[in-house]
Amino acid sequence: MWSASAVDQHTPEPGVGSLAEDYLSVRHTTEQICNPLTAEDQMVQSMPDASPSKWHQAHTSWFFETFILRPFLKNYRPTDDRYTFFFNSYYKQLGGHPVRAQRGLWSRPTLDEVRRYRQHVDENMMKLLEAGVPDDVAALVVLGMNHEQQHQELIVTDIKHALWTNPLKPAYRERAAAYSGDAVPLKWIEHNGGESLVGYSGDGFSFDNEGPRHRVLLHRFGIASRLITNGEYVEFMRDGGYSRPELWLSDGWDAVGVNGWRAPFYWVERDGEWRVYTLNGERAVHPSEPVCHVSFYEADAYARWAGTRLPTEFEWEVIAARAPVGGNLLESGQLHPSSVRSPAEARGTPELPIQPMQLFGDVWEWTASPYIAYPGFHPATGVLGEYNGKFMCNQMVLRGGSCTTPTSHIRATYRNFFPPHVRWQFSGIRLAHD
Amino acid sequence: MWSASAVDQHTPEPGVGSLAEDYLSVRHTTEQICNPLTAEDQMVQSMPDASPSKWHQAHTSWFFETFILRPFLKNYRPTDDRYTFFFNSYYKQLGGHPVRAQRGLWSRPTLDEVRRYRQHVDENMMKLLEAGVPDDVAALVVLGMNHEQQHQELIVTDIKHALWTNPLKPAYRERAAAYSGDAVPLKWIEHNGGESLVGYSGDGFSFDNEGPRHRVLLHRFGIASRLITNGEYVEFMRDGGYSRPELWLSDGWDAVGVNGWRAPFYWVERDGEWRVYTLNGERAVHPSEPVCHVSFYEADAYARWAGTRLPTEFEWEVIAARAPVGGNLLESGQLHPSSVRSPAEARGTPELPIQPMQLFGDVWEWTASPYIAYPGFHPATGVLGEYNGKFMCNQMVLRGGSCTTPTSHIRATYRNFFPPHVRWQFSGIRLAHD
Amino acid sequence: MWSASAVDQHTPEPGVGSLAEDYLSVRHTTEQICNPLTAEDQMVQSMPDASPSKWHQAHTSWFFETFILRPFLKNYRPTDDRYTFFFNSYYKQLGGHPVRAQRGLWSRPTLDEVRRYRQHVDENMMKLLEAGVPDDVAALVVLGMNHEQQHQELIVTDIKHALWTNPLKPAYRERAAAYSGDAVPLKWIEHNGGESLVGYSGDGFSFDNEGPRHRVLLHRFGIASRLITNGEYVEFMRDGGYSRPELWLSDGWDAVGVNGWRAPFYWVERDGEWRVYTLNGERAVHPSEPVCHVSFYEADAYARWAGTRLPTEFEWEVIAARAPVGGNLLESGQLHPSSVRSPAEARGTPELPIQPMQLFGDVWEWTASPYIAYPGFHPATGVLGEYNGKFMCNQMVLRGGSCTTPTSHIRATYRNFFPPHVRWQFSGIRLAHD
Amino acid sequence: MWSASAVDQHTPEPGVGSLAEDYLSVRHTTEQICNPLTAEDQMVQSMPDASPSKWHQAHTSWFFETFILRPFLKNYRPTDDRYTFFFNSYYKQLGGHPVRAQRGLWSRPTLDEVRRYRQHVDENMMKLLEAGVPDDVAALVVLGMNHEQQHQELIVTDIKHALWTNPLKPAYRERAAAYSGDAVPLKWIEHNGGESLVGYSGDGFSFDNEGPRHRVLLHRFGIASRLITNGEYVEFMRDGGYSRPELWLSDGWDAVGVNGWRAPFYWVERDGEWRVYTLNGERAVHPSEPVCHVSFYEADAYARWAGTRLPTEFEWEVIAARAPVGGNLLESGQLHPSSVRSPAEARGTPELPIQPMQLFGDVWEWTASPYIAYPGFHPATGVLGEYNGKFMCNQMVLRGGSCTTPTSHIRATYRNFFPPHVRWQFSGIRLAHD
Repeated sequence: MWSASAVDQHTPEPGVGSLAEDYLSVRHTTEQICNPLTAEDQMVQSMPDASPSKWHQAHTSWFFETFILRPFLKNYRPTDDRYTFFFNSYYKQLGGHPVRAQRGLWSRPTLDEVRRYRQHVDENMMKLLEAGVPDDVAALVVLGMNHEQQHQELIVTDIKHALWTNPLKPAYRERAAAYSGDAVPLKWIEHNGGESLVGYSGDGFSFDNEGPRHRVLLHRFGIASRLITNGEYVEFMRDGGYSRPELWLSDGWDAVGVNGWRAPFYWVERDGEWRVYTLNGERAVHPSEPVCHVSFYEADAYARWAGTRLPTEFEWEVIAARAPVGGNLLESGQLHPSSVRSPAEARGTPELPIQPMQLFGDVWEWTASPYIAYPGFHPATGVLGEYNGKFMCNQMVLRGGSCTTPTSHIRATYRNFFPPHVRWQFSGIRLAHD
Repeated sequence: MWSASAVDQHTPEPGVGSLAEDYLSVRHTTEQICNPLTAEDQMVQSMPDASPSKWHQAHTSWFFETFILRPFLKNYRPTDDRYTFFFNSYYKQLGGHPVRAQRGLWSRPTLDEVRRYRQHVDENMMKLLEAGVPDDVAALVVLGMNHEQQHQELIVTDIKHALWTNPLKPAYRERAAAYSGDAVPLKWIEHNGGESLVGYSGDGFSFDNEGPRHRVLLHRFGIASRLITNGEYVEFMRDGGYSRPELWLSDGWDAVGVNGWRAPFYWVERDGEWRVYTLNGERAVHPSEPVCHVSFYEADAYARWAGTRLPTEFEWEVIAARAPVGGNLLESGQLHPSSVRSPAEARGTPELPIQPMQLFGDVWEWTASPYIAYPGFHPATGVLGEYNGKFMCNQMVLRGGSCTTPTSHIRATYRNFFPPHVRWQFSGIRLAHD
Repeated sequence: MWSASAVDQHTPEPGVGSLAEDYLSVRHTTEQICNPLTAEDQMVQSMPDASPSKWHQAHTSWFFETFILRPFLKNYRPTDDRYTFFFNSYYKQLGGHPVRAQRGLWSRPTLDEVRRYRQHVDENMMKLLEAGVPDDVAALVVLGMNHEQQHQELIVTDIKHALWTNPLKPAYRERAAAYSGDAVPLKWIEHNGGESLVGYSGDGFSFDNEGPRHRVLLHRFGIASRLITNGEYVEFMRDGGYSRPELWLSDGWDAVGVNGWRAPFYWVERDGEWRVYTLNGERAVHPSEPVCHVSFYEADAYARWAGTRLPTEFEWEVIAARAPVGGNLLESGQLHPSSVRSPAEARGTPELPIQPMQLFGDVWEWTASPYIAYPGFHPATGVLGEYNGKFMCNQMVLRGGSCTTPTSHIRATYRNFFPPHVRWQFSGIRLAHD
Repeated sequence: MWSASAVDQHTPEPGVGSLAEDYLSVRHTTEQICNPLTAEDQMVQSMPDASPSKWHQAHTSWFFETFILRPFLKNYRPTDDRYTFFFNSYYKQLGGHPVRAQRGLWSRPTLDEVRRYRQHVDENMMKLLEAGVPDDVAALVVLGMNHEQQHQELIVTDIKHALWTNPLKPAYRERAAAYSGDAVPLKWIEHNGGESLVGYSGDGFSFDNEGPRHRVLLHRFGIASRLITNGEYVEFMRDGGYSRPELWLSDGWDAVGVNGWRAPFYWVERDGEWRVYTLNGERAVHPSEPVCHVSFYEADAYARWAGTRLPTEFEWEVIAARAPVGGNLLESGQLHPSSVRSPAEARGTPELPIQPMQLFGDVWEWTASPYIAYPGFHPATGVLGEYNGKFMCNQMVLRGGSCTTPTSHIRATYRNFFPPHVRWQFSGIRLAHD
């Protein structure tokens, strides 16, 4: 069984291990995440947006094979030439890929064959890396590792949905419940606005959509010290939140009606009590835990009900830029957002009298910002230009990572993005005000 | 690996073995059919009409548990009470069942658990049968065995579709191609019409929809001595069969347009040659083999093009009633329709100067008869009344069994039924004329 | 305003008027039916199955133009060559027609232009008919007249749906309510079965699908003396008719769920009272009137609930063959089914001690017979072969005409057909038993 | 027939006429636009996004009745209380409205009744206005007038689609073609960036979404002096623009595939020549006219192909703020975008050496800006808060008005918004670069 401590040992620490060591560590984590799952579990695609764990394992290997081994390893012999088409996700310039919604129909290659495929790719990657690679190839390897980390998060997110779809509601694994004490009071961190620099700078890895670093003009604002809790969200529900159109965006109100939303995803009411399906099985909703699995529409409606609004992605970033990365991330092994541990955690410093909490981990935080390009942004030329840029429409930016995000993968400038109706991600709410 | 000879040894011969032996034989055949399949293969539901092999194995066990063990075996302890809901197919009076199209999402129970479920049911059935059962319970056991045989056929039919959906087009098993000689000439067996008795009589098993036996008035007709071959069907295609609206029923013409039909299902044209996917993999279309995987609409259009028509189910039955059951059925192990073996096979007798060939096995034969109740038919009261009667609308009758039908399961009065657009069944064409 | 008496004067009586007089009479009736409707009303297509009144008026003219004037009137000059395509309904061999569901989008040609089109066709038809036509052309003219009568019924049926779709629920016309007394008792007319002749014989007009006349073998049966009333149907509803799966065909049960059926179409419950929308506006449901606007599924479920069944089309026909055509048909001007007028109506004769009532008019009666070809049926060659034959699949036969059927159009051998889920037709229930 | 000059006389000039005169002028223009249309034309709803002209005429009256007459005119007697529900478009807080897609089914109220409804509203509005109204009511009247102007534009846009849907392709009116000379060269207007003020200021009317006025930080950019022409867009098409995935946003590429886009909407290729449907009928595409009826996806792909990008809404606004409102707007009567008239038009001034052309009128210009709230924006409380704010998601901002926009309705700060796939609006392309 996968244990958090095992993961900890292998988390790539940029600059610590060699590239080859880091590579193996990332690959190993993927397999650990899949370990509690049977071959059958790894087949399930419970909706078109999600993918089977087996597919994630194969596709991440395909990424290294397609973009690194084929062009850069002399005499590389692929496992199966048909995989080039078979495990392509969405790179149109490669000449085609299977229909996304059919990934769950593929019993072949079997999980054993996919494992051999991973091994084959790893062996050849080692051959390449041990011989040493030029900087541009090394950059591609690091991109592939970050790509695989994104899929680690998706494996967890998608298997949660897959197992929940099963009427037997099996758990991903049994585990003692996380700590859940009382909620700490919500405070407001005020910011005077003005010109600020946003976007990535530094010499580590970042995605192309985090740059170019540029100046933005912020207006005076306040941002909440912590996430909105289940208890607070239940107040919204009790106050008719899901039946008052004046609280909702037009598309959001339509989504409420079409989908019959009346609570966060994974919640179910039994005998008057709200219960929630987690990766450890179903249990009561704990009031002090951050509300999770809400859409942007719900986050926005909640904020309007509360007389506030969601922060923009830059308001979030300038606050988060001052905070160290850490919290309830993948390595905690919780796989569920957790309450603020203790009042001590909330204690401020002279510089920052009110401490921002839960910025990293727990839940991805919906922002008020549509996902668009930064000024001067140009996607890479060639196939890898399709990685991020082509999705810059109809999606909203989320910030901060969740309890399923690897620690080494997240940072203050990181921009995640999903369409506003999506609920199967670990997504939650932080408020702001003018 | 599953071998035809192994199946032969266990085929239930009514009246030969004891009920317990017959029961075990049927159950064993199901497992043999599934043997070449991995747990992952047995997960696949490639369309809502089809079901995963694992589900078929579980549902057939559920049938015995629900209708025999629970009511009749004292102190029976079910494996899991949730299975009552979980593996119900369509019996509404039992209070609900899962959405059919989601059967492929269920990784749990695992294949191993389903196998244990089968074993548990078998052990308890043995307990019951060895103690001796009254006639009404014995009748239910035989119904359950016939029910399981229907699902044996569906396992083969559905896994063919499942594996074909996979871009890698894997075979169910490798096997030498069946004999395929030249086609024998098509002759016409003439019948003078008049009053005839149709429907089951005898003291063996039959389904409720095969009765009551009753008189029908036939008009003078002729029926073809053999099935239509691929070669003949290609002539229809070459003559613009799929692009001439005057040959088609209105709904059929719509189906051609919406689905883009231009050949039987599983056919693909490569470099000007028609090839076909079979359970042994893809190979060239053999002209003398019976055309297979055509819809009722295509069968009807072919008949119209040929200046003929399809037989009614009663025309078919009065001819078949004179012929012994036999041919290319499940036990042949071909799993594909085959040509008439030799001219000798076609040789007539004084009583029947033109020998009807391929009546049983090879392909289910579309008839011109909508599936409706016989005069005086009443479905059983209670839940099992839902078995056949409630489907008597919008479907057409097929007769004769296919290469995937167990020999002991088929007879001249047997009525199969499918909607007219369906193509994934092993269904073909026999002509008739006035 | 259209009055019933005006219609009476012009009803074509075969053999009475000349062909030209009959032609004009039929054409005139169409226009009378449309008279209460504005140009805007005549635009509405409230669902793909229905058509705008303006389209019906144009398409019936197109029929005469396409099949008679163009081939047989020398130097005929069409109004607009584009109408050949524009007003084709479904004749595929003519090379195409607009998408059916878009008929309601065509503001041009305007109603005035369509009226001029009708006039142009009429003037040219008169030119042709006054010069005298050979028998085969005369037969086409009579076919065109019967075709137009079918569309007269559809104009009424479709405009009912169109006006009902409007939240203002306007009436087609204001009119005093029809007589609605108490229901007369339902009795059973018994028949001994045996061989009977069915299908049209005679030298008047009949559709191709009414022949060839042929022998059928009937089994002993009984048929109800009158239609099922609203009051009786309400009993079925109160007894949980719409929530008991055991009463329904599988496809019917699905239709109940998907469409949320819980009463006949056009019924609405207000303050605990069932009310019905009629062409004269909304009013209370009268218990003694025949139930109307039910699907085959509902008719079948009602019969099962009542411990009976629907008659076959031949059982209906042998009874109806002995009865004169008459009753609440189009010329009554009711446009709604009506109660049996008085007990006197139900009085039998020595030959037929129990009088069958309401066989013609009021509502089309669903039969248990799928719509298929009679033995030896061959559709006409050429385009007009598409008239009836190509619909012989997935539909059920209805018999007897309704309150919207012209009297001269109906007879005992007449076969109407609709898919089993359809409810906007004036369709009702007559029971039978074994 | 509606003539441009007639419109000119009645265009409301803020500050010139009295409120009552302005009101009547706006109302009159609506009726002039509808004049060339029959009652049948005014029924057509050719897709759910569009509405019938009759509905637009009624809904704009409903706006005055609902928000002004009912609350503020003592003893006001409405025409029909059911209209409150019937002609509500999307104001959820009013308690419901009909399904949008069914507006084309309503033959009642007839056009004559709607005209009487307009007259009734006008008479009562006159009563109110002549008595004098306080400022807050006057503001609502001006909002209602601007609301009606938006619907004037939609009437033109929607009737174009409605008539085009008709296979006969009728023209809205016959009119001599607009001038179309050669294209003037495209030049770049450079801007140094820096902080700028955007959003409405002044004491005229503006929509709530144009404020609050606030500072934004612009980065150095250039913007094109004129719109992209058909000739330039054809170059993109010839260079494989619609078949090169690297040019498209992911959602855009999907839209190309699903809809089969290969040219702007209303274009059709006949014998190798591109032709275009206009409100004056079909004619050849003129190369120097601005390309029109393209989606945001096409505008974005064109810009990428050209090595440029679309401007942000603020880049557009700071340039437009220096230009007077004028150009090919509704009052020109062209109802189609037109070429830059002459090189003289392009002549610069010392202050602005390169003259921006076609900023107002011709086509709405897609910007790179998603439609979101300005900092500090709060929608009005109450029902009218639904006017703009609830649509701030999944839409893109368009600027500048089109050839169907009333002159008095547009200004530099005006924000129009549509989803990125929409093509039936008069929408086109202006380029920018970093």
